[in-house]
Amino acid sequence: MSVTLSDIRAARRRIAGGVIVSPCPASIPLSEITGARVYCKFDNFQRTGSFKERGARNALLQLEPGQKKRGVIAASAGNHALGLAYHGRLLRIPVTVVMPDYAPLIKVSTCKKLGARVIVAGRDFAEARAQADTLVDREGLTYIHGFDNPAIIAGQGTMALEILEQVRDIDAIICPIGGAGLIAGLAIATKALKPKIKIIGVESVATASFTAALKAGRPVTIPRRATLADGLAVLKVGSNAFELARRRVDQVVRVSEDWIALAILRMVELEKTVVEGAAAAPLAALMAGLLPGLKGQKVVLTVCGGNIDPAILSRVIEKGLVHDGRLTRFTAVISDRPGGLAELTRVVAASGASIKDIEHDRAFSGPDVSAVNAVCTVETRDHAHIRELHRALRKHGFPILVAK
Amino acid sequence: MSVTLSDIRAARRRIAGGVIVSPCPASIPLSEITGARVYCKFDNFQRTGSFKERGARNALLQLEPGQKKRGVIAASAGNHALGLAYHGRLLRIPVTVVMPDYAPLIKVSTCKKLGARVIVAGRDFAEARAQADTLVDREGLTYIHGFDNPAIIAGQGTMALEILEQVRDIDAIICPIGGAGLIAGLAIATKALKPKIKIIGVESVATASFTAALKAGRPVTIPRRATLADGLAVLKVGSNAFELARRRVDQVVRVSEDWIALAILRMVELEKTVVEGAAAAPLAALMAGLLPGLKGQKVVLTVCGGNIDPAILSRVIEKGLVHDGRLTRFTAVISDRPGGLAELTRVVAASGASIKDIEHDRAFSGPDVSAVNAVCTVETRDHAHIRELHRALRKHGFPILVAK
Repeated sequence: MSVTLSDIRAARRRIAGGVIVSPCPASIPLSEITGARVYCKFDNFQRTGSFKERGARNALLQLEPGQKKRGVIAASAGNHALGLAYHGRLLRIPVTVVMPDYAPLIKVSTCKKLGARVIVAGRDFAEARAQADTLVDREGLTYIHGFDNPAIIAGQGTMALEILEQVRDIDAIICPIGGAGLIAGLAIATKALKPKIKIIGVESVATASFTAALKAGRPVTIPRRATLADGLAVLKVGSNAFELARRRVDQVVRVSEDWIALAILRMVELEKTVVEGAAAAPLAALMAGLLPGLKGQKVVLTVCGGNIDPAILSRVIEKGLVHDGRLTRFTAVISDRPGGLAELTRVVAASGASIKDIEHDRAFSGPDVSAVNAVCTVETRDHAHIRELHRALRKHGFPILVAK
Repeated sequence: MSVTLSDIRAARRRIAGGVIVSPCPASIPLSEITGARVYCKFDNFQRTGSFKERGARNALLQLEPGQKKRGVIAASAGNHALGLAYHGRLLRIPVTVVMPDYAPLIKVSTCKKLGARVIVAGRDFAEARAQADTLVDREGLTYIHGFDNPAIIAGQGTMALEILEQVRDIDAIICPIGGAGLIAGLAIATKALKPKIKIIGVESVATASFTAALKAGRPVTIPRRATLADGLAVLKVGSNAFELARRRVDQVVRVSEDWIALAILRMVELEKTVVEGAAAAPLAALMAGLLPGLKGQKVVLTVCGGNIDPAILSRVIEKGLVHDGRLTRFTAVISDRPGGLAELTRVVAASGASIKDIEHDRAFSGPDVSAVNAVCTVETRDHAHIRELHRALRKHGFPILVAK
């Protein structure tokens, strides 16, 4: 199936006014930490928090009157469901979303609040999809695929038209790959208008379905593995999306979960913006050194969405602080007699570190019943400061154990 | 000392190109939760994460050549120090900042990275200020006050000129008050151009120094109390700022720490943006119902900064989830024999809740040695879901204790 630049231009006219033209500013701090000249296309600022609205609105607007009246359906655990629900409400088209049972509670309740009929069914995407197909048959609903429908791909491509107007002389655009709908649309528009701009795809190591498809020459199903970037967790890329993207994408890299987590923290700290794992993947690829050729180059990161579960964000931040050496935990063996803890806390304070939490662990403190393990969580400046703290503690007679 | 609209216009021309014209979009989700028509002026997107750059750059550019050469100094624990350090580097003016010893480690190291000479001295702001004064005398540095210098106030006022161009027919602008420099500048520009727009100030209940000054008729020092909004923790408002603001501010409200914390979470979830406590205060005031007259009105929130310590952000998010009933903790008494825990987790799962953490607490489980306390942290949908979960647990024979 073909999607062309003129389809994408038509999509842009169609969705204008209904979808935000998101900003694409330069980022000095991200440029400093990566060595590239970084710009961020902030599609996490869309009303439902992701780029998926572009395609959803474009697809909804192209339905026939009868289809609009009967309504649409999709299986989705996340952003596609939200985009459809929101624009369905705006356009008065009934929307049903079938969400697999692992869909985050917050997305289920937001889809309901946006007026969609929500059916939670299926242990995985395939089961949810099967449930949706039943309703297509029974109720005459139109199925709108989240990344393989040509109208969806054309809609996602509108992001590239905006980027090319917002930033001049771009060397590369880095784009996460889930089902490959976004990168397909982006690549079609970009290569048609500015063929010298490199299009670079990023997958999570855990869910590299595009890489697998490139290897096999066609979309194949990869095994399910956990990833922080749920938006990238598509086990088989779309066949239309794959065919459109494969010849237009210059390079695909795979980034580890640790780098994705750290990139989320950097976005929070340096850009004051909240991103989901998929949206952090392009920055993660730069930070991990996977794209050394981009040093000094003008690079646009597609920050595709901001729908991260706040509880997960909270854990990612803490893990990132541990990685930076700004939060550390150690177990010090102290005397169970009065004064043991006082001396420990004095030594920690004198080193300039700040104690956040201390737990006493008697049961697992070893054979010496007069000794107690004190599990300390401490705020520090960096890894050098942690080493300094450990030295000071040992010097003052506290044996310490450090988790690795 | 006088600051006029023409000073603010001159400041705007002076700092143009050096400071970002931050966006001021409408927010549908914040409008939904507050009942007002909410716009957000995102000055947390400035390079150093706060509006303080406006005043800092304006003040630096007005120095005499000799002053520029000798350099400037300020006592500040935070955003003013960052703004000065950054623009000092851009303008090649040496900057010294004296930071009290409670200044966050990350701000100290960022000021150093930006090339400022950083002196950490003093247990409070007054002591840091005294140290700075010594250097003014000894080295001939120019002291730039963070909120009471007229050039600083004029610089902060440029935010209002941008807002008035970005949003039409505004009914009110809500602005946090720390030292009162921002609200003074905002009020001068706004009341000169659009006197019907209400200027509403927000303080933390913990640090209501502007309210105290209004009562006393002049700036007075209030007692130190802890606040999440460190940007608001100024114990005595500036005397210039106070005189300029007092007759132009229509209303001042005081918001509790709990509402500030919850407003930070809402900004993360609904706007995908990271704000510090001070910047969340205007939203907190709306959410807390302190401004019922603004229902249906067009209201601009000045989102003044995003420099929140990530570790604090992480804790604020978790507290907010507890408030929403999306994270809950209870202690269930289970049998110490095999199968007790299996049955407990089965009942929790059947209720649709998701267990995040379980700790066993034997030592404090009461007189029955065959019973164990299991402290469970669980993800839930809302408060109704929590009540449902408690009922299910009791029905299956688990006595439960809930912390309040």
